[in-house]
Amino acid sequence: MTHTNTAALDTALAYHRAWTSHDFEQAMTYIADDIVCQAPAGRLAGAEAFRGFMGPFTHILTRSNLIAAFGDDTTALLMYDTDTLPVQDAPGAECLTVRDGKIVHMRIIFDRLPFEAARRAPRPG
Amino acid sequence: MTHTNTAALDTALAYHRAWTSHDFEQAMTYIADDIVCQAPAGRLAGAEAFRGFMGPFTHILTRSNLIAAFGDDTTALLMYDTDTLPVQDAPGAECLTVRDGKIVHMRIIFDRLPFEAARRAPRPG
Repeated sequence: MTHTNTAALDTALAYHRAWTSHDFEQAMTYIADDIVCQAPAGRLAGAEAFRGFMGPFTHILTRSNLIAAFGDDTTALLMYDTDTLPVQDAPGAECLTVRDGKIVHMRIIFDRLPFEAARRAPRPG
Repeated sequence: MTHTNTAALDTALAYHRAWTSHDFEQAMTYIADDIVCQAPAGRLAGAEAFRGFMGPFTHILTRSNLIAAFGDDTTALLMYDTDTLPVQDAPGAECLTVRDGKIVHMRIIFDRLPFEAARRAPRPG
């Protein structure tokens, strides 16, 4: 359908495919060392901070579904749905800036409320 | 840049411009009577249910900024930032399906946690 340069979208989809298939180390190869990530809880600077945020999420992921993905040569925008161990039907959206095949900026949106509710819920045992 | 049919994006941007400029009645002219909206709190069916969800939000909106917007002939994907009376820096993302110039489906993602925290906070007076 599209005739634009989709370099950023290509990188975003490669990153997305990697982490949703539980290959987080492969996903990290698309993350710039100096990535800045604006997450719901605040700003994360650098690949190691990003790893500490996103890595644990991939461990609780049980299902994912890409809802929509668009992009051009510099920017990609993705929306997806996930199921996780604590929360079912937890969608997310990411706006990614890509430079030289690496994600240098990510703005990620998801609803923290059900995760917070699950964290506070009494655990069996 | 793009050579695709962007009919859905055009409608999505017209809707977005209307509600972010506090003309919610104009925004509602882009909403199909039988819209289905998947919001963080659950599924809303029909334009009146949608009005009850989105209308109050436009009343607390103090600033907005479109972060990214893409789309084709049927689907649009938007990410934006907002400031609201209770919560600053409250971004949202919407995936819209458009048919005959009307939004028939919307999946909207935002973080309810800061709104819940503001609701629970002690009020002055």
